[in-house]
Amino acid sequence: MYSAVDHQFMSEALAEAQKALYLSNPNPRVGCVIVKDGEIIGRGFTQKVGEAHAEIQALADAKSKGKDLAGSAIYVTLEPCNHTGKTPPCVDALIAAKPVKVIAAMSDPNPLVAGKGLERLKAAGIEVHCGLLEAQAQELNRGFISRMTRGLPWVRMKIAASLDGKTALPDGKSQWITGPLARADGHHWRAQACAIITGVGTVKEDDPSLNVREVATQRQPWRIIVDSKLETPLNSKILNQADQSGVLIVCAELDSPGNREKAKAFTERGIEVITMANAFGKVDLPKLFSYLAKERQMNEIHIESGFKLNGSMLRENCVDELLLYYAPFFMGEGIGMANVPTLPTLDTPKNWKVIDQRLIGPDLRLNLVKN
Amino acid sequence: MYSAVDHQFMSEALAEAQKALYLSNPNPRVGCVIVKDGEIIGRGFTQKVGEAHAEIQALADAKSKGKDLAGSAIYVTLEPCNHTGKTPPCVDALIAAKPVKVIAAMSDPNPLVAGKGLERLKAAGIEVHCGLLEAQAQELNRGFISRMTRGLPWVRMKIAASLDGKTALPDGKSQWITGPLARADGHHWRAQACAIITGVGTVKEDDPSLNVREVATQRQPWRIIVDSKLETPLNSKILNQADQSGVLIVCAELDSPGNREKAKAFTERGIEVITMANAFGKVDLPKLFSYLAKERQMNEIHIESGFKLNGSMLRENCVDELLLYYAPFFMGEGIGMANVPTLPTLDTPKNWKVIDQRLIGPDLRLNLVKN
Repeated sequence: MYSAVDHQFMSEALAEAQKALYLSNPNPRVGCVIVKDGEIIGRGFTQKVGEAHAEIQALADAKSKGKDLAGSAIYVTLEPCNHTGKTPPCVDALIAAKPVKVIAAMSDPNPLVAGKGLERLKAAGIEVHCGLLEAQAQELNRGFISRMTRGLPWVRMKIAASLDGKTALPDGKSQWITGPLARADGHHWRAQACAIITGVGTVKEDDPSLNVREVATQRQPWRIIVDSKLETPLNSKILNQADQSGVLIVCAELDSPGNREKAKAFTERGIEVITMANAFGKVDLPKLFSYLAKERQMNEIHIESGFKLNGSMLRENCVDELLLYYAPFFMGEGIGMANVPTLPTLDTPKNWKVIDQRLIGPDLRLNLVKN
Repeated sequence: MYSAVDHQFMSEALAEAQKALYLSNPNPRVGCVIVKDGEIIGRGFTQKVGEAHAEIQALADAKSKGKDLAGSAIYVTLEPCNHTGKTPPCVDALIAAKPVKVIAAMSDPNPLVAGKGLERLKAAGIEVHCGLLEAQAQELNRGFISRMTRGLPWVRMKIAASLDGKTALPDGKSQWITGPLARADGHHWRAQACAIITGVGTVKEDDPSLNVREVATQRQPWRIIVDSKLETPLNSKILNQADQSGVLIVCAELDSPGNREKAKAFTERGIEVITMANAFGKVDLPKLFSYLAKERQMNEIHIESGFKLNGSMLRENCVDELLLYYAPFFMGEGIGMANVPTLPTLDTPKNWKVIDQRLIGPDLRLNLVKN
């Protein structure tokens, strides 16, 4: 059904979408190329939220070069939208351009679209196909798909460890386990996330900034601190850079006078404080992720925390993907990766699946998803 | 200097050498192809010890097909030997065959040969080259090279662990961390070794057979038990299969009446017992490896042991290669990979280097060598 040329142009559209990786959240990463007489006459990718979608960018690009769009073929990595969000529907602009054919890599999981965009194009007499290089397009938007279909973000947990699974020396020191290339790669994953989550323990012990520095980005993720008792020190680095993006502290109890006082100190600095407790007086993590997807439109969450919160996240089944870096040495005694309960037996099924393994400098990187 | 055709024929010779992987110890794995008029007319690889070398096999193969060897080109993965060991020198047989050219992948690190084989061929008027696909040829014979150049075997330590670096449940159970494909792959590495070493702790706790079952082999490695106090139970499985190959128990003290008695019970069953103590009354591991290379002609040793002996091996700098399998799950509490001293700081250089990483079924396999 699809020709080699179709594959080539959709690959070009995917390469465009890739440019939106750090940028378009919470919108999906979408790329578009417009082809006429076998040549690409327009390219575009989703801009930052509130700005143009990929199709509009590509149409504008073609027009800026004085190209006649009538009779063109349009390759787009996600079904064009037919609803008005922060920008008008893309289908209207596409129909106005009079292409003969639109090929989408995947349909839009957003229930407001979900096939209706393609239907509109068909109804306008345009030849429509959907599904070319679908897996690649889906991979680019795991987070958006997760939010639209599950009401949850795609949650990725990053851990850097020695070969023997230790993340810090017994005294807590963890700088640095991995080399500079792996650390820069870690920032590449941070930059993709809508928010980076850590625990108050890590804030107090390591005082990390948890922003994106090692890769160029126009958008900084939110930083979220899981802090049941509001113990985040006011001089923590993670709070100091609130100008770059938002900071959210999630506690388990706001109604005591002490905590109201502490929360006030945060909110006066523009830091949001919310409460979300479970029956044990701890932060309700599943509820938090549901909230982040449904109320805050967060697609991907990056966890960068320590033994305790990593364990809670895994025990409460909040993690969709593991991003593990192993540095090539043995640490001996040290702090483990995650406080998970000991297995009763080794007969239990192995619950993760490696989807990618590669060397980043001298360190090994593993990506795993639920099996 | 070398043509694409030369590369192709040497690759064929390397493929022959690969067939000797489980077989030729302590002789090096060598492959040979004989080419005439652009066609391979004879092939061979090193047979088991005392039987024919690769060159002799290839010459016999060509002759058995009625081929005239005069004027041929001979590709061999190791410099032909010029000394009489258990078999006569290969160079004499090669010279008698009247080839025009001999190409070797690498010179023989055996000081008895070390270039003299190639010199003999040159002196006989044969065109000689050396060094084509040398790295691949060396990789096949790390153990032989190590024994010849360092007087030590190449020591590979195998560990199977969970993602968080645990090798057994707190109760010691370790069957099974990895899946059947990784376990079979482990036997592939066992089969390459001259001996498999374990500690008496592993023998008592797991009662492993430590023979090769999951891959087909004509030769079983020796089994060696590091057992300072001669505590190996007489009914251990590792002893039960002494007919397949030798078993060696290495203790630290033989001169007490109790130990002499125990040693007698082993030797009566055909199990060798030797003593090799260090100043701390433990088995002297570096001395043991030197002994295994120099006195027992062992090229490659496979360590399959537990936390304590793994730690001693690493601490005493006896390990040349790590063969690590990671299964895709977290174990939580459990037994660690190796009892190594905790690092004082993370500024120490990372002392291993990943040379291969791949999935074996659902499990990750890493090979690392000293950095």
